[in-house]
Amino acid sequence: MSMEPKELKDKIKGIIHVVLTHFDENDRLDEKALRKSLNYAANALKGEDAVFLSTGSIAEFYAMTDQECKKAISIVVEEVGGQFPVIAGTGRPGTKLTIEMSQYAQGVGADGVLIVNPYYQPTTKEGLFRHFQTIAESIDIGIMVYNSALTTKLWIPPDLMVRLSKIDNIVADKETTTNALAYYWMQKAVDPKDMVIICGIGQLMYTFCALYGCPGFVTEFANFAPDIAISLYKAAQQRDFDKLTQLADKIAPYQEFLTKVAQRRGTLPTVLSPYISSNELPFYQSVMKTAMSLIGLPGGHVRGPMENITAEEKEELRKVLTDMGIL
Amino acid sequence: MSMEPKELKDKIKGIIHVVLTHFDENDRLDEKALRKSLNYAANALKGEDAVFLSTGSIAEFYAMTDQECKKAISIVVEEVGGQFPVIAGTGRPGTKLTIEMSQYAQGVGADGVLIVNPYYQPTTKEGLFRHFQTIAESIDIGIMVYNSALTTKLWIPPDLMVRLSKIDNIVADKETTTNALAYYWMQKAVDPKDMVIICGIGQLMYTFCALYGCPGFVTEFANFAPDIAISLYKAAQQRDFDKLTQLADKIAPYQEFLTKVAQRRGTLPTVLSPYISSNELPFYQSVMKTAMSLIGLPGGHVRGPMENITAEEKEELRKVLTDMGIL
Amino acid sequence: MSMEPKELKDKIKGIIHVVLTHFDENDRLDEKALRKSLNYAANALKGEDAVFLSTGSIAEFYAMTDQECKKAISIVVEEVGGQFPVIAGTGRPGTKLTIEMSQYAQGVGADGVLIVNPYYQPTTKEGLFRHFQTIAESIDIGIMVYNSALTTKLWIPPDLMVRLSKIDNIVADKETTTNALAYYWMQKAVDPKDMVIICGIGQLMYTFCALYGCPGFVTEFANFAPDIAISLYKAAQQRDFDKLTQLADKIAPYQEFLTKVAQRRGTLPTVLSPYISSNELPFYQSVMKTAMSLIGLPGGHVRGPMENITAEEKEELRKVLTDMGIL
Amino acid sequence: MSMEPKELKDKIKGIIHVVLTHFDENDRLDEKALRKSLNYAANALKGEDAVFLSTGSIAEFYAMTDQECKKAISIVVEEVGGQFPVIAGTGRPGTKLTIEMSQYAQGVGADGVLIVNPYYQPTTKEGLFRHFQTIAESIDIGIMVYNSALTTKLWIPPDLMVRLSKIDNIVADKETTTNALAYYWMQKAVDPKDMVIICGIGQLMYTFCALYGCPGFVTEFANFAPDIAISLYKAAQQRDFDKLTQLADKIAPYQEFLTKVAQRRGTLPTVLSPYISSNELPFYQSVMKTAMSLIGLPGGHVRGPMENITAEEKEELRKVLTDMGIL
Repeated sequence: MSMEPKELKDKIKGIIHVVLTHFDENDRLDEKALRKSLNYAANALKGEDAVFLSTGSIAEFYAMTDQECKKAISIVVEEVGGQFPVIAGTGRPGTKLTIEMSQYAQGVGADGVLIVNPYYQPTTKEGLFRHFQTIAESIDIGIMVYNSALTTKLWIPPDLMVRLSKIDNIVADKETTTNALAYYWMQKAVDPKDMVIICGIGQLMYTFCALYGCPGFVTEFANFAPDIAISLYKAAQQRDFDKLTQLADKIAPYQEFLTKVAQRRGTLPTVLSPYISSNELPFYQSVMKTAMSLIGLPGGHVRGPMENITAEEKEELRKVLTDMGIL
Repeated sequence: MSMEPKELKDKIKGIIHVVLTHFDENDRLDEKALRKSLNYAANALKGEDAVFLSTGSIAEFYAMTDQECKKAISIVVEEVGGQFPVIAGTGRPGTKLTIEMSQYAQGVGADGVLIVNPYYQPTTKEGLFRHFQTIAESIDIGIMVYNSALTTKLWIPPDLMVRLSKIDNIVADKETTTNALAYYWMQKAVDPKDMVIICGIGQLMYTFCALYGCPGFVTEFANFAPDIAISLYKAAQQRDFDKLTQLADKIAPYQEFLTKVAQRRGTLPTVLSPYISSNELPFYQSVMKTAMSLIGLPGGHVRGPMENITAEEKEELRKVLTDMGIL
Repeated sequence: MSMEPKELKDKIKGIIHVVLTHFDENDRLDEKALRKSLNYAANALKGEDAVFLSTGSIAEFYAMTDQECKKAISIVVEEVGGQFPVIAGTGRPGTKLTIEMSQYAQGVGADGVLIVNPYYQPTTKEGLFRHFQTIAESIDIGIMVYNSALTTKLWIPPDLMVRLSKIDNIVADKETTTNALAYYWMQKAVDPKDMVIICGIGQLMYTFCALYGCPGFVTEFANFAPDIAISLYKAAQQRDFDKLTQLADKIAPYQEFLTKVAQRRGTLPTVLSPYISSNELPFYQSVMKTAMSLIGLPGGHVRGPMENITAEEKEELRKVLTDMGIL
Repeated sequence: MSMEPKELKDKIKGIIHVVLTHFDENDRLDEKALRKSLNYAANALKGEDAVFLSTGSIAEFYAMTDQECKKAISIVVEEVGGQFPVIAGTGRPGTKLTIEMSQYAQGVGADGVLIVNPYYQPTTKEGLFRHFQTIAESIDIGIMVYNSALTTKLWIPPDLMVRLSKIDNIVADKETTTNALAYYWMQKAVDPKDMVIICGIGQLMYTFCALYGCPGFVTEFANFAPDIAISLYKAAQQRDFDKLTQLADKIAPYQEFLTKVAQRRGTLPTVLSPYISSNELPFYQSVMKTAMSLIGLPGGHVRGPMENITAEEKEELRKVLTDMGIL
């Protein structure tokens, strides 16, 4: 049974664990690998504040068929449902398609859905409001808005987020801005009774958001270094900012490796500013999967058009993770 | 039978007619309406240089299920295949999904596919090259690259387009830049023996591209005012630039109506510049469908999250089209 | 004596010749060189539709003291005033500073002033209107608005330009957009009785603007290859678009050289899109000065922080100009 | 006597107080008012870690003549030199002009200069490096780089900042990014022995930067509410983050007032994203001056093309400051 939206809202805190999707040698969904990875993370996060997030950007939902997405969602619910809240990424560029996928997720027992801003043709503020409102009316479970400026180029500003937060089963915002002032105003505008705002960009941005009591953060680290994610969260909850910044410095080498790989691959052919696009790394899923395989978990390749890192880069990553004490 | 890519390339000229998708009152694909609209355009374009383009942005492919897209493609092939080259929009954010849809289109007899730049997570230049190359290898029919900076934020620069143009069955670029110098360098860089560059933004930009012999343009006008589209093309082919600019001024009121509607609806909540986003109008399909219904063809609503224009705006549009001599 | 604004407006057509500023070995304003260059251009343009534009971006006004700017303006008026209309770049980021410089230009006999959008702190639409209005009221001579999106990031949209065009002595717009549709709407919005819109970006963009009867274009070519500039203008006036596009192709190698040099120097550290900044070349003045020296005119260095091209690049440019028939 | 660069570097901490420039009813530099404001701030900041910053953006340097800038610098040195380090804004779009103004500042006894990125024509990374290097070689006093993405659109990335930090008398970065991750990487890249990185955007961004030990922040508050600025700094130094966030919430109404005024005035006609330009408020100096006049200090108008707030807005501000306990 899915949770009530209110219960889900209360449980959205701590480590928002992004579940990756594994593919086998024939590029088919690797169910066994997925279950193994889920169990690894579930064991590591047992007893901790944590939420499992499936079929999001990092899970390559955009490169999977609807059938594959549905399969992945049901596997996640089967393996960890009940133990942890499960939120399934079900956003599509059209309202109707999003509803269909969200109703499926509800049907198989997901506790909530993650709805990304429409990502092909942009729409107006009213169009965005209606999109989320219509979806909310079509399901009973809770909704986490995925305010993803980096991939969708749309950004729901605070006044619109406040309106969305007043809809009963819209209970959370996975906020992806790197702009500290934008984050400040968003968390100030939205009543925490209506909506939980989590840091959607990862552990490094979370150190900043933690200052204002941000209750949780999306992280890939529980896939291969869960202790780091747990330590970060605990330091933030204890408001031990000295420890928090020390931990940030400890994970910096992983991020620096990402930057180094990005620089090798050159600028994206985008009409956007490099200032923005420097955060868009078409191989970050490959780095995560490689990190997983380095600790003995299933990893595997990523689907095109994203890039897989090279064998040499895998060795570089091994060194980075070793120096970080992960290997 | 589908055409050979080389034959398709030679036939990509004139009016690149965008086929819309109609939905019935229950929001289901309206097959009958689609056939009626296709026949209207096919009659109007008989004997002219024209290509039918289905399931593109204007056809709301992003808001349709894969099944609906497939159905729409097969209807277009059935109704006008053989009479006109049929190109089906089959691009998806992942390589594999794009291949599957493209093979379907080939299977039902489409003459080519339109592949938009990956539109969720951006990729590198090499990622883009591999994406198109892998798709090209998976089918036998011709490919039109949809270099859509406005919706995807990626823009394939001339040097990468030249590489793509050297792949045998990549035969055309639906170029959507509004930057006249970018267009100049693109057409100069690419060998016309390898690839046809058409104006992907519509009739007004086409007047500029025509200067450098651009062989065709994407237009919605054949859906409700085919004579205007045909006249524009003929003026351009005859290099009668006085007539061409007079025709541009004649269609300006339609564009001005779009701008007026946009200003009413306010700025998009986008991280992009208004300079760019002013061309992104989340109701332009609704205006087209309304124009169709005003001349007695099927029109209907657009799917969320895009906007439908209001009843008052329909009356404004009626006046505009009357003043333009269309009604 | 300066011209009346109305007379100036009628004379703003043809070749809007950008006068460069030369500096001697001690980096002082090289008056003798400036006079020599002016005479070269004046001889070449005798009898043609032409305007002399001093102390603009290309003249490095932003790297010169006010005293140097004043000296340069008075030299230009002395050498070519009476023969050709002289317009002096006098825009500054503040209204008051702009007024002071504009009154100076009027005092020494300039026929008009070129006022760039405020380029440090951006202002509102009303702030922009008031800026230009206040300046207009402070002088009697005509004003050319320099709508320079590339350097100022502000862009006066058509509705604001219309308001400015209704001010008596605001008579021209040096329009720098590369967006063909933006240009279309600007020329359509503004009544040609109120204001002349010239192509402010150079010869290549002019081929597009010429389609809609654009009366003149800013060009650096009269500094080292005046015949090309004159031919382009004549072809445009005769609406001989075949010739115009052939001429564009003839000058393309010069632009390609600029692009090649830019690629060597890498991306600018800008928060703007590369799409926009690709037109901002921090060494284009150096290329112009080098071209001048290659034909035996004064050239010299450019002031920091812009770049001077290398000795090797000078040889490359020599080859380009030789192939173009200029040397 | 000016300080040695090393001494200056050690003293750049705490409240980096931005000195405004006042103008009298005839729009002339109001020397008396300036001295009065300086004394108010100097009294308030006595015994605190503080630096006085003159002739920067907030001081409207871009709207002042060089003579006025020089006068303002010398007055600031006269009034508070010796008591506090004095840094004078002397950046211009050209290297040579910057050197001249910087040498003047050194000559009258300023302890350092603030050099903004070139703000008219953008330059390359090497051009930027050479610009700062050449200026550094021309003076003996210390340099604070003003990495002002908002007004100049250029942003010195960490690798270039590291190179600049190795130049002896380049001792500080007034960093204006709102991107928390950009700030993180900048402070991580630069060795604090080489360069001090202060928060250049104000009190609200400072709360985030304080997490990583940021030693000081630029603020306008010492002009009308010095206690708030001092409290913020002390909370940050004591790493009392609960108090720091409470203080942030206490100053939020002032920022909210700025946003409200901005929304009234509409979008800027800029080619940049609203995401970026929302921080560029063409009336913020007027709000500061009005706040000063409300506490009985000299305020006055701002120079065009920036906007002065209205009489009604002054009353709104009075209410805001009263509610904040400032009045």
